[in-house]
Amino acid sequence: MDNKKNENFSEWFTEIIQKAELADIRYNLKGFIVFRPWSVLSIEEMYKLYEKELQSKGHKPTYFPILIPESNFHLEASHVEGFSPEVFWVTEHGKGEKFEERLALRPTSETAMYKMYSLWIQGKSDLPLKIYQRGTVYRYETKATRPFFRSRELVWIEAHNCFATKKEAVKQVKEDLKMTEKVMYGEFCIPFIGFQRPEWDKFPGAVHTYAADTLMPDGKVIQMPSTHLLGQNFSKPFNVMFADEKGKQTPVWQTCHGPCISRIYGGMISILGDDQGLRLPFKLAPVQVIIVPILKGDDAKNKAVLKYCKKIQKKLIKKEFRTEIDSSENTPGFKFNQWEMKGVPIRFEIGPKEFEQNKITLSIRTKKQKETIDFKDIVKIVKNKGEEVTKDLKEEASKNFLDVIHDAKNMNELKQVLDKGGFARIPFCSVEMEGRECADNVKAETHGDIRGIRVDSKEKPNETDKCIWCGKSAKEIVYIARQY
Amino acid sequence: MDNKKNENFSEWFTEIIQKAELADIRYNLKGFIVFRPWSVLSIEEMYKLYEKELQSKGHKPTYFPILIPESNFHLEASHVEGFSPEVFWVTEHGKGEKFEERLALRPTSETAMYKMYSLWIQGKSDLPLKIYQRGTVYRYETKATRPFFRSRELVWIEAHNCFATKKEAVKQVKEDLKMTEKVMYGEFCIPFIGFQRPEWDKFPGAVHTYAADTLMPDGKVIQMPSTHLLGQNFSKPFNVMFADEKGKQTPVWQTCHGPCISRIYGGMISILGDDQGLRLPFKLAPVQVIIVPILKGDDAKNKAVLKYCKKIQKKLIKKEFRTEIDSSENTPGFKFNQWEMKGVPIRFEIGPKEFEQNKITLSIRTKKQKETIDFKDIVKIVKNKGEEVTKDLKEEASKNFLDVIHDAKNMNELKQVLDKGGFARIPFCSVEMEGRECADNVKAETHGDIRGIRVDSKEKPNETDKCIWCGKSAKEIVYIARQY
Repeated sequence: MDNKKNENFSEWFTEIIQKAELADIRYNLKGFIVFRPWSVLSIEEMYKLYEKELQSKGHKPTYFPILIPESNFHLEASHVEGFSPEVFWVTEHGKGEKFEERLALRPTSETAMYKMYSLWIQGKSDLPLKIYQRGTVYRYETKATRPFFRSRELVWIEAHNCFATKKEAVKQVKEDLKMTEKVMYGEFCIPFIGFQRPEWDKFPGAVHTYAADTLMPDGKVIQMPSTHLLGQNFSKPFNVMFADEKGKQTPVWQTCHGPCISRIYGGMISILGDDQGLRLPFKLAPVQVIIVPILKGDDAKNKAVLKYCKKIQKKLIKKEFRTEIDSSENTPGFKFNQWEMKGVPIRFEIGPKEFEQNKITLSIRTKKQKETIDFKDIVKIVKNKGEEVTKDLKEEASKNFLDVIHDAKNMNELKQVLDKGGFARIPFCSVEMEGRECADNVKAETHGDIRGIRVDSKEKPNETDKCIWCGKSAKEIVYIARQY
Repeated sequence: MDNKKNENFSEWFTEIIQKAELADIRYNLKGFIVFRPWSVLSIEEMYKLYEKELQSKGHKPTYFPILIPESNFHLEASHVEGFSPEVFWVTEHGKGEKFEERLALRPTSETAMYKMYSLWIQGKSDLPLKIYQRGTVYRYETKATRPFFRSRELVWIEAHNCFATKKEAVKQVKEDLKMTEKVMYGEFCIPFIGFQRPEWDKFPGAVHTYAADTLMPDGKVIQMPSTHLLGQNFSKPFNVMFADEKGKQTPVWQTCHGPCISRIYGGMISILGDDQGLRLPFKLAPVQVIIVPILKGDDAKNKAVLKYCKKIQKKLIKKEFRTEIDSSENTPGFKFNQWEMKGVPIRFEIGPKEFEQNKITLSIRTKKQKETIDFKDIVKIVKNKGEEVTKDLKEEASKNFLDVIHDAKNMNELKQVLDKGGFARIPFCSVEMEGRECADNVKAETHGDIRGIRVDSKEKPNETDKCIWCGKSAKEIVYIARQY
């Protein structure tokens, strides 16, 4: 790698995308990229882990159409207002025959799904309805795009749920936050803080928006999965009603949850990578074990070494460890660098000595030292070393994340904290709409965005705390950071 | 089920889609359906099996953009001619701002991918390039649509490969046909015949098209996966070149393969289902084992029965068998019918007797009789019984498929064969373009389509055989059938 991650993050990111062949930005349509195999193989594993978790919580998979008639959008006013400027419209087919109404390439699927929900839900026995889909959504993004993080085609999951009571809907929000913890941190090694967003930064149509924020190596914040408490804002106009105990038609309570897998992948490689390149959690690595034959003997010996490599590979593949042998013409040193750059967690070096002694020289991506192991132990050791790599990555990411929150009592302190990167914790007048003007002023002066109030703690200002901008009595402790 | 599959296939199909909650056709856009969880769960397993096979043959997954600039299409003349009438066009975004050129919602991805291939391929070391993606494609179908079989949104896989030589490309075609045998028949239990299509029925831009045809219960044929030998027809206009040994820039040889998973699913449930409903291969069943508690004792006994059911479920889930307990209020008889209709391969009935004796009453979807097994053996028995269900389905499908080919020497015989359903084998003048007129005439008179020449045998006409239409000397033995 030519760039150092912590000195030059943006260039490092561009370099790793190209060198590790994660994506190609040369597709001839602005804001669209090609995801290449090395990223897709990890992203598919991320889908597996996320979907397994969703299914274990009772969410069922569906495929909804990608096109949504424009009239569907107009049923919920703030939703149409929020998304209309970003929609790609299909207007014609074939040689130019027009459709009766424009068809949206879905920017999100509320307005596709909830029309069907109104057909599916009749009584209490149809509830809860917990449905998700994996797929892509389209937004005509006008900000500068960046591969994985922000583009006009997003690779994501969206879950849309209906409940008989508000209580159950709120419980679902909490379940989503727990799932985010389990998958995002537990599996993908991404530390984050969960926030309830201020009123002016909600999903269009939501009662409340909750989101997981993490930090990039340059100290800027990025939003990871979000969950929206939709209340009855959509069920009323979309007529998603159930007959309650007394037979009364009642609008359901709704939530939706949208982890953007491509963005999470971008966040993950940024947080976990180092100056040698990618580092990947063991479960997500396209190749988990790379075997590098060290050929330096005569032909017969080399053949024996290669045969031994194949024997090792076969044993590991049988246990479903993704294992490859690099038998290219390159030097071992070149290969070591190459596979380190690609983020392969475990490397086996196999030369004549290893072959003769039925041993393997092993090293892992997160530590410098090498060790020698016996052939008979490889399955157990690969499993343990794989877990060790994931644990190392998680611990390092968590350690870096510890020191990112600093209190600021006034605008000067705030600027200093934000210049260093990370979150500033500040007293603030309100996260209701009345606080918006202060937020806008703070942003104009510091480029910092109010991320909201923390969901995992009950932080409250002291009685004497004043809003950092207007000086009125502070109702909330909020977090602020510069964002991507 | 109100309809009998072999008397009333079309109505049976409509009924099963609704009763088993496979899809909803009420989405408010013509030709688009909602895939509901019970079909999606199977389709996702089909993807897993197909992708595993593709990856084992060296194909790597990618995600290409869903939008393709119109100018890309114009690079290959017959491709644009073939697909243009069917394209959905994105022409504007936001409040009506026009794009400089129209953007196609991909009907297939040659013209998206091959522009990138021309950047990726430089020398022989970049070959072969074997890439695939899972995803959806869009075609403005004007024929009547039918869920899973023909709609305007197709759920599929497309693999696109580049080789240095024609020989390798032809070898890839054979590999694809073998893979079709292994997955389509081996895993999905769908028998089929592979054909080389006549010249007038090729994929737009292909040198040759090869396709797997299977038969629906009403004797009509349906095309399953197809592979196209593209030769250098695309690599020349798209400039996908490599430097050969002498440094000469040479266009690569290409193939593409497109299994439409939604259509295969439709074919599978049609072929395997019966008058009780769905029947699914064990690996593809969303629920593999349904446990039905028979509660007829007192409360304490019922509790013990339910506890025993949970113990069984836990043991099976630990071994990754998808297992559910139906503890709804319905009667056991209702539950039996319901889960048979849904195609669950294995049923456990658990009453007080089973609980007391630590036994299980088991039955499978493909056989009438019940048997009693010991709790300690359930893992082994579920595995074996699962394989038995798949084997039963495969054997029955194969048996039904044996008797579908009949020779016809003249137009009268041909009509009789086609009226009965299945394939007619006929002598025919030519599958080159010169045979097209005869094919059109035969179709006008019989509604039968020439499916092509069989790829798995070297059938040749006798010297005295005459074309069934024009009476000229027959060059080929072709198969003909009525199609969906």
